[in-house]
Amino acid sequence: MRIPVMEIFGPTIQGEGMVMGQKTMFVRTAGCDYSCSWCDSKFTWDGTGTSTSKQPADIVEELIQIGGAAFSHVTISGGNPALHKGIGELVELCHQQGWKVAVETQASIWQDWLVEIDDITLSPKPPSSGMKTDFAKLDLFMEKLLHANVSLKVVVFDQDDFAYAEGLHQRYPAAPFFLQTGNDDTATTDDAQLVSNLLHRYEQLIDYHISSPIMNDAKVLPQLHTLVWGNKRGV
Amino acid sequence: MRIPVMEIFGPTIQGEGMVMGQKTMFVRTAGCDYSCSWCDSKFTWDGTGTSTSKQPADIVEELIQIGGAAFSHVTISGGNPALHKGIGELVELCHQQGWKVAVETQASIWQDWLVEIDDITLSPKPPSSGMKTDFAKLDLFMEKLLHANVSLKVVVFDQDDFAYAEGLHQRYPAAPFFLQTGNDDTATTDDAQLVSNLLHRYEQLIDYHISSPIMNDAKVLPQLHTLVWGNKRGV
Ligand code: SF4
Ligand code: SF4
Repeated sequence: MRIPVMEIFGPTIQGEGMVMGQKTMFVRTAGCDYSCSWCDSKFTWDGTGTSTSKQPADIVEELIQIGGAAFSHVTISGGNPALHKGIGELVELCHQQGWKVAVETQASIWQDWLVEIDDITLSPKPPSSGMKTDFAKLDLFMEKLLHANVSLKVVVFDQDDFAYAEGLHQRYPAAPFFLQTGNDDTATTDDAQLVSNLLHRYEQLIDYHISSPIMNDAKVLPQLHTLVWGNKRGV
Repeated sequence: MRIPVMEIFGPTIQGEGMVMGQKTMFVRTAGCDYSCSWCDSKFTWDGTGTSTSKQPADIVEELIQIGGAAFSHVTISGGNPALHKGIGELVELCHQQGWKVAVETQASIWQDWLVEIDDITLSPKPPSSGMKTDFAKLDLFMEKLLHANVSLKVVVFDQDDFAYAEGLHQRYPAAPFFLQTGNDDTATTDDAQLVSNLLHRYEQLIDYHISSPIMNDAKVLPQLHTLVWGNKRGV
């Protein structure tokens, strides 16, 4: 079953969350059922980007062509990759190659292939996104992924977002929990200014984090790739 | 048994390695059997700092006084904490409080309390440090810590260091492996310049990493605390 692909690139490093620093290839799929105010991948769903419909086997071939032998990990990102049933076949082919597979999704649409993923990041969206979390659906995800390697990640822009994250961590205390700095200027090309802003935001998030006993076990991380490459795509 | 302590501070975040982003208190012990050229904690062993000899129970009390209820994790760092037998008692007391304990050591001196540590980072020193690794001793560490949560971390300044890291990863392929950017200016107070240099070094390390199939499973990380707070101590 074909998958609409926006871009395939790498190897580069995973700049976020549970496998931060991991060398990985990226397959970015098209489309999202959300429209977060601060989405940093709007081109996957707002009509400004173009996707190509690809067979899983062709995607694997392209990964090998681009990455050679210098990777063992593939990240499927979006958009929301969980829109696409065909990813099940892609995951199977990746595993046949001996690669591990990571996926990030906002947990709004279930796919059975999710249980096969090696590193699953569920990233429900906080108030600043303008989206509403369907907690009944999220409960279902957490139940079905009970024995999977799953983590929760929340991007935090302000104190309301942080309170949302606290509630989420209390609802699912057993899941590894990651707080992540938000990037509120996904268009700038002034990298020095961006880095300074992002580090300032990160320090502020650390401050919230440090004063919250609820969040003792959570980890708070920046986006490494934005610090290194700014808003550039394909790195 | 008393422990010579340089400083106790936190809660702050762990800026390095296997528990990057974790909220933690720091207990920094005095003394080191190494003298790495680029050591960023020289004050623990070069005579410029002063330590106070403390009982483990008093350290725990101090941790509670400073950190209140807003932490559940303690990092014991140095210098080389493995110089001090008394840390065994401290670890036991921390566990009684329900706290997890992390330690980093260069793996030159064994202590039986190491098997009790929740997050162990062994950080053998690469050629640029001017130190020599005793691989027979490191083998012994890895053997004794076979069932512990142990990772290897190498600070990389240049290609010789990277080659050393490759050899190490091949020697212990099962241990989670972290590459870390070196900081070659541990004295500067020009934070903007430091951040720019460190991100440049990080990008260079990513380049080495990406072209090395040997390192496919390794993770490559910066020092987060230096990006946020520069060379300031006690944060
Ligand atoms: S869920 Fe993710 S991809 Fe979709 S709009 Fe929100 S941030 Fe963008
Ligand atoms: S082992 Fe660590 S503390 Fe000791 S000199 Fe080297 S860098 Fe400094």
